[in-house]
Amino acid sequence: MATQYAPDARSKANRLSKRATYDAPLIHSLINSCPLLHVSFNAPISDSQESQTQFPTILPMLGAISTFSSQSSSDEDAEPYLYLHGSSAARLFKLTPPGGLPLCIAATHVDGYVLALAPFHNSCNYRSAVVFGLGSPLTDPEEVEFALKLITNNSIPSRWENSRHPPTKAEVTSTGILKVRIETASAKVRTGGPSDDRADLMDEALVARTWTGVVPMYSVLGTPMESEYNKVKAVPEYLGEWVEDANSMAEQVAVDAVEG
Amino acid sequence: MATQYAPDARSKANRLSKRATYDAPLIHSLINSCPLLHVSFNAPISDSQESQTQFPTILPMLGAISTFSSQSSSDEDAEPYLYLHGSSAARLFKLTPPGGLPLCIAATHVDGYVLALAPFHNSCNYRSAVVFGLGSPLTDPEEVEFALKLITNNSIPSRWENSRHPPTKAEVTSTGILKVRIETASAKVRTGGPSDDRADLMDEALVARTWTGVVPMYSVLGTPMESEYNKVKAVPEYLGEWVEDANSMAEQVAVDAVEG
Repeated sequence: MATQYAPDARSKANRLSKRATYDAPLIHSLINSCPLLHVSFNAPISDSQESQTQFPTILPMLGAISTFSSQSSSDEDAEPYLYLHGSSAARLFKLTPPGGLPLCIAATHVDGYVLALAPFHNSCNYRSAVVFGLGSPLTDPEEVEFALKLITNNSIPSRWENSRHPPTKAEVTSTGILKVRIETASAKVRTGGPSDDRADLMDEALVARTWTGVVPMYSVLGTPMESEYNKVKAVPEYLGEWVEDANSMAEQVAVDAVEG
Repeated sequence: MATQYAPDARSKANRLSKRATYDAPLIHSLINSCPLLHVSFNAPISDSQESQTQFPTILPMLGAISTFSSQSSSDEDAEPYLYLHGSSAARLFKLTPPGGLPLCIAATHVDGYVLALAPFHNSCNYRSAVVFGLGSPLTDPEEVEFALKLITNNSIPSRWENSRHPPTKAEVTSTGILKVRIETASAKVRTGGPSDDRADLMDEALVARTWTGVVPMYSVLGTPMESEYNKVKAVPEYLGEWVEDANSMAEQVAVDAVEG
């Protein structure tokens, strides 16, 4: 597997290219650590709309990148794919042409608000990845189960093993998974504090009255709340650890981003 | 201003339509409370790529919806517009055809992970809005300043008044703001706990060993970290209150979502 994606017209940074990277492990980790992905595609324009210009559509979906090795393939030719799952996947299936549906998938993490002397220089610390690829409905039952387990455990570690498995045949058949062959991808990372113009920095009165810096921002998981039909008294260890680990790292990532 | 958007082929819910709403105030509040918006558009296919299928592109941008009333217009004809700002706005300017650039803008808030007996029924509590509209470069200096103030204070309340303003002429000229005329929009809201199949609910051993419920998720703001050139010793009250207010409401929203 290549460790860098090859930029092309779709993924090449047009601006602020010093923030851009094509590093595959980073891009994969940004996708896999994002609670929800934004998936963009073009719905076909129906006859009655032909005069309309093409509007893309965005759907939020769950997804994760990994490599599926079936028994019939060798490990060497295994490439990572992005698997997407969501209640809307079925809609995308119907739109998919034979060669696959062109998709753009974005994962964005906001790490903080950057407050400068002038609002013009305000910014955000963020890490974002964008992937371009062709999505096709996944039909192989073995790979559907692999993708379901991947997406489940990617969100909630060890949940697959600790809930009812394997899926029923009906579940495998009716689960809409899009398998995306990645064509190109890129990431952008903004870190550090504000950066102001010299004229503002020289304005002593402005500097004396205007707080500048970064307000870190991060996601946390709250106390698990049981369902009406839950019978397990204590929150299981694997869930408690997941919440604790996620929360212990989250603030640090946002704080580290300030130090750049 | 209409209180409901009229659904059309772009915004009409295809699945789970009981979760869908076209309520304008809700959609506006989901957009305005989202730290970063995902903006999708179609870049023109260059001659060398003509054989390629159309891939949409997604860019993360800041933005907010509001109504601009200039002195030359009456309040009655004032419609809300979505104003977008970001380092990439300039790229979009170049792509904009005379009638405006077709855009899809998404705002998604994840409120929690929903854990069911079967992974097939896992879900997320979320609130998402999607807006379809035509974007055009904003050039009127008065409205550019209005949009800059709007987007600044939408992220960080009262920051505009508490930092250097008004913007310089050079800042107004070089700020890329896209003004989006909203054509249609919709929102989806998922609340509540898990919902499992009867067969799994009747499986006493499965219910006895599998924790089910919701793990709330929410964003928090951390302790403000001053810049290298900050001279204001204490964090100003308006910033402290913003952090406190945001954090005090965030968890409650995620917990309330579980109760549906």
